[in-house]
Amino acid sequence: MQGLAPSSKLMNLATATMLLFLLGLQAAGVAHAGRQRSAPCKEMTVYFHDIRYDGTNTANATSAVTAQPTLLSRSASVNDTYFGEVVVFDDPVTAGPSLASEEVARAQGFFFYDGKVVPNAWFAFTLVFNSTAHRGTLNLMGADPVLEKTRDLSVVGGTGDFFMARGVATLRTDNIQGLYYFRLQMDIKLYDCYDV
Amino acid sequence: MQGLAPSSKLMNLATATMLLFLLGLQAAGVAHAGRQRSAPCKEMTVYFHDIRYDGTNTANATSAVTAQPTLLSRSASVNDTYFGEVVVFDDPVTAGPSLASEEVARAQGFFFYDGKVVPNAWFAFTLVFNSTAHRGTLNLMGADPVLEKTRDLSVVGGTGDFFMARGVATLRTDNIQGLYYFRLQMDIKLYDCYDV
Amino acid sequence: MQGLAPSSKLMNLATATMLLFLLGLQAAGVAHAGRQRSAPCKEMTVYFHDIRYDGTNTANATSAVTAQPTLLSRSASVNDTYFGEVVVFDDPVTAGPSLASEEVARAQGFFFYDGKVVPNAWFAFTLVFNSTAHRGTLNLMGADPVLEKTRDLSVVGGTGDFFMARGVATLRTDNIQGLYYFRLQMDIKLYDCYDV
Repeated sequence: MQGLAPSSKLMNLATATMLLFLLGLQAAGVAHAGRQRSAPCKEMTVYFHDIRYDGTNTANATSAVTAQPTLLSRSASVNDTYFGEVVVFDDPVTAGPSLASEEVARAQGFFFYDGKVVPNAWFAFTLVFNSTAHRGTLNLMGADPVLEKTRDLSVVGGTGDFFMARGVATLRTDNIQGLYYFRLQMDIKLYDCYDV
Repeated sequence: MQGLAPSSKLMNLATATMLLFLLGLQAAGVAHAGRQRSAPCKEMTVYFHDIRYDGTNTANATSAVTAQPTLLSRSASVNDTYFGEVVVFDDPVTAGPSLASEEVARAQGFFFYDGKVVPNAWFAFTLVFNSTAHRGTLNLMGADPVLEKTRDLSVVGGTGDFFMARGVATLRTDNIQGLYYFRLQMDIKLYDCYDV
Repeated sequence: MQGLAPSSKLMNLATATMLLFLLGLQAAGVAHAGRQRSAPCKEMTVYFHDIRYDGTNTANATSAVTAQPTLLSRSASVNDTYFGEVVVFDDPVTAGPSLASEEVARAQGFFFYDGKVVPNAWFAFTLVFNSTAHRGTLNLMGADPVLEKTRDLSVVGGTGDFFMARGVATLRTDNIQGLYYFRLQMDIKLYDCYDV
């Protein structure tokens, strides 16, 4: 009888272990569905400055218009929202809001305007980190409905210190001066991090 | 002797648990290689309508040509396949094939033609959901060899209700009217889903 | 007393199992943070050939300039680095460095120049595999600082044989002849593979 009690406990334990194990498998990605959303494994807030070429600021400009609608240029845009205008950039990204604060990365990529009635944009770019703090890249893409208070882009990949990273970057327009300067606050949260 | 039997059972159980556990680790992504492909955690079929600006349809157009080859325009294209032509769009995406059916998202992005001999295209865009059913975005990119019956794009990221989503979107040309209208059936299957 | 010893062993085993299990969950991606970086699950080295349209090579060209800066074209570029020039391509990708070696894929996509002082580029493209060895696509994007010896792009997704793949592609300029030909060695390492 003494042997029986441990045996039945063993069975219970074995059953419980299997249950926990199967739950574990499900949570751990074999089924993929309904993974638990966790806290970010890396967070940073940086500032993205776009200084458009206006025909005279060759020394300071960090972006330039490269294409505009070819048929009856801008006629597809009802309210002069620059529908179809493409801008290429190599923009400074700084630690603080001031353009004079520490440069932590370059944002290299492009965006275009794709709103007919209200301004809208779409971005794809790489954050290139090349400092003692970080070396590597993050690749981002997504819609930027510029009139919304916050807009979320996807962080779809990374290299170097950000090997295989994924996450979300939330943009807020922090400062805008006509067509030729804007500053975005960018809150980057990574949810997939790998040891480097 | 009574104590020994449970002990050896304990050893067997411990061994079995370790084995299961190690198998679990492998399946669960520490090794990454050969993850088991599972059923999609989310599926939807939607319809993507592209209404090109033709110089007159300002009110209805949802896309416009923004760039064409600069050297001897279109000469690189053997059969007038519009090699290098870039189109920006903010296209309606509907629940049914009819443009009049419920709009479930906007497809905001661009494509270009990159076939010299037969038509070929390449897309990158964001599905922007902003309804009671879904709020958030899916980001897609990939080649679109338009003459193939079906073409697969990658869903490379998502935000909001589609936080961190990944998957595959299969396109089928459902209707095409010259250069100025096409409709794609888009079967989206997500294999990475997170609780929101 | 005989019953007690197994019981306390049971408790130890249960505790150890729970600990292992919790460690397992952490390693397996519920927390995402600090996943262990593993060996690639798939590796390949291929060669990417870009043959630019020069106005005369219609038969051989595989890429063409499609957009240039619109305001005072190229003035934003200090050293004639072609800032803002956009190139669309459908380039052959071969098994060996020779253009005559076996074609393993097409690279379909675009790049643009975004360096003001030194040449810099940004790429997004799809590797389209359509052979007996591989059928499917890999989607890549990232900055290409062309003067660096090696540059890393992200592999952000895949379809077909490369279903849901992710990884890193390292580029090396292998050969360059002015503006009209370059060859890149591309080392592709995938870290997320799924059974197909």
